[in-house]
Amino acid sequence: MQAYRANSSSVGQRGELALLAQIRRRAAQTTGSGLRLGIGDDCALLRLRPGEELAVTTDLSIAGRHFRLDWHPPESVGHRTLARGLSDLAAMGARPVAAFLSLGLPRELTETSGRRSAWVQRFLDGLLTLAAAYKTPLAGGDLSESPVVLADIVLVGALPRGKALLRSGARPGNLLYVTGALGGAAAALARLAELTRPSGPIKTRPQPPSFSKKLAAQLAPHLYPLPRVTQGLWLRRRRMASAAIDLSDGLSTDLAHLCRESGVAAEVDASALPIHPTATLAQALNGGEDYELLFTAPASARLPRQIAGVPVTLIGRIRKLRPGQPAVTLLTPQGPQPLEPQGWEHFS
Amino acid sequence: MQAYRANSSSVGQRGELALLAQIRRRAAQTTGSGLRLGIGDDCALLRLRPGEELAVTTDLSIAGRHFRLDWHPPESVGHRTLARGLSDLAAMGARPVAAFLSLGLPRELTETSGRRSAWVQRFLDGLLTLAAAYKTPLAGGDLSESPVVLADIVLVGALPRGKALLRSGARPGNLLYVTGALGGAAAALARLAELTRPSGPIKTRPQPPSFSKKLAAQLAPHLYPLPRVTQGLWLRRRRMASAAIDLSDGLSTDLAHLCRESGVAAEVDASALPIHPTATLAQALNGGEDYELLFTAPASARLPRQIAGVPVTLIGRIRKLRPGQPAVTLLTPQGPQPLEPQGWEHFS
Repeated sequence: MQAYRANSSSVGQRGELALLAQIRRRAAQTTGSGLRLGIGDDCALLRLRPGEELAVTTDLSIAGRHFRLDWHPPESVGHRTLARGLSDLAAMGARPVAAFLSLGLPRELTETSGRRSAWVQRFLDGLLTLAAAYKTPLAGGDLSESPVVLADIVLVGALPRGKALLRSGARPGNLLYVTGALGGAAAALARLAELTRPSGPIKTRPQPPSFSKKLAAQLAPHLYPLPRVTQGLWLRRRRMASAAIDLSDGLSTDLAHLCRESGVAAEVDASALPIHPTATLAQALNGGEDYELLFTAPASARLPRQIAGVPVTLIGRIRKLRPGQPAVTLLTPQGPQPLEPQGWEHFS
Repeated sequence: MQAYRANSSSVGQRGELALLAQIRRRAAQTTGSGLRLGIGDDCALLRLRPGEELAVTTDLSIAGRHFRLDWHPPESVGHRTLARGLSDLAAMGARPVAAFLSLGLPRELTETSGRRSAWVQRFLDGLLTLAAAYKTPLAGGDLSESPVVLADIVLVGALPRGKALLRSGARPGNLLYVTGALGGAAAALARLAELTRPSGPIKTRPQPPSFSKKLAAQLAPHLYPLPRVTQGLWLRRRRMASAAIDLSDGLSTDLAHLCRESGVAAEVDASALPIHPTATLAQALNGGEDYELLFTAPASARLPRQIAGVPVTLIGRIRKLRPGQPAVTLLTPQGPQPLEPQGWEHFS
């Protein structure tokens, strides 16, 4: 449903109804050219431009698995929820049309006044600030009481028919590129874990810590990643890329996905990797959630050094897949070695 | 993401990876004319027909709130998850194009062998059987470990631009109609609650009961409601209805929504209501989850008695909203009385 309805007027759900009204009010301030009808009816109505098709992605985030209430500021949880979806659109070269948010909240967080309510408001601050920056209206969703905080985000995007950047388009001889820097999110997460480590043996922290400005900048690659929507659109419009995927699970894992879908192998030059200044090689290879784009292009394509201010780095090449050979090989000063998928889930 | 990926190859998540592969395999068997690319890339790709716009709806179902593991057979949970979304499309007069499912499961339910795995397989049986009946491919989604079973369903539908059946189109003088019978789901739920009531004081039932064929038929309005997609399409194509909403929260609540969005009042004839043979008047008025369509039409419209085999009943009329007067009035043999929204949430 799109009305953010609560199924009751009973006393216990007044807080929920008031929260619904707040979400509806705040969502109404987000607009986009493709949104014909937002929250308030059985469905939202969206319109594409002539000749376009739809790209749809959903990402489920659950407390304790994708974020921690005692580690992540609520604004970061909201930002990261939306960033995950926008990054999937970026990887296809799609422009965002609208987002839908299903929220599950423990009853105490649906209270609309006091400190508890601040969590949801700050979550929405983070989500809607990113939505505004990427011109993505919040067009609907659902709200339910839940024993655990959870947020399922749906992104609807659009792109010209048949022009999506797919995982399956890489061909032997193509070169392999990545945007931005790698491992910064994993390094920031490791730092966040240190900061939030209880000093006593069983000390619990009900609240995330507050950070100094300098520290906030260090943690930003993990707390506030910027999905590469502009870069994905650029690659799709210039027809530069033959395949693309976003780096959500880590280079070793996502490159394996791309190779599998394309039926090819890949070589990565360890010395060419744009490792984030705070990160180790292992974090650059296996740390997830950088949300950079990994893409391939024919050797004849002339890629610029930057796209919209974000560096583009040549890190390897696509090879023919041979039986008994590893799908992904890392070239190091010590010689070639197989690169196994080692992306990981942080909080499980 | 659309790949139903798990972010790890670690030992603890092998079950999850195997389950992902199973879902992907089963989803690949569901097809639809608008689906260009399903599970396996960053997004699914969907295509509309020329002149169409999109209808999108999301519905979050959480164990203990929207269903109970000890009451509902897994097939029913899967069926009801999808039915909620299809019913929202029906209310707009949209044809289903694709569904997306985000699933949160406790780790023991992601095991792919043994009795525990049976729960997910049976859940998918219920969901995919309904999906096949309504020609709705499962085009993607997400999977995550979760402390509680949850399913967020997204339905994407299509309809000619500007032709959606809205909640806001009812006008004074319009007549008020409903499809099917009312209260059957609430009556079946009450019966289900009786059946599953523990006989001892603190007896827990880890498994839903199994039902005889006769009992299953009695419980069907609650366990296996049929969304009125065909009827919604018929009404939209014939341009018969001025406004529509689906009865998910109960007549008293959903009619109040329709009146509020249209800025009108309504009268309901108690004696005209098509009360389900097993239901009381209160269940017909306030019981939720019948998933029938409530709609309005100009008095000049000639509605048939049935649409695609489902009865259509005239139950009242739309009036001008007057200050100080109730939005919805129930006409009874004892005279008119205000009908307050009393839809309820069953398991909270």
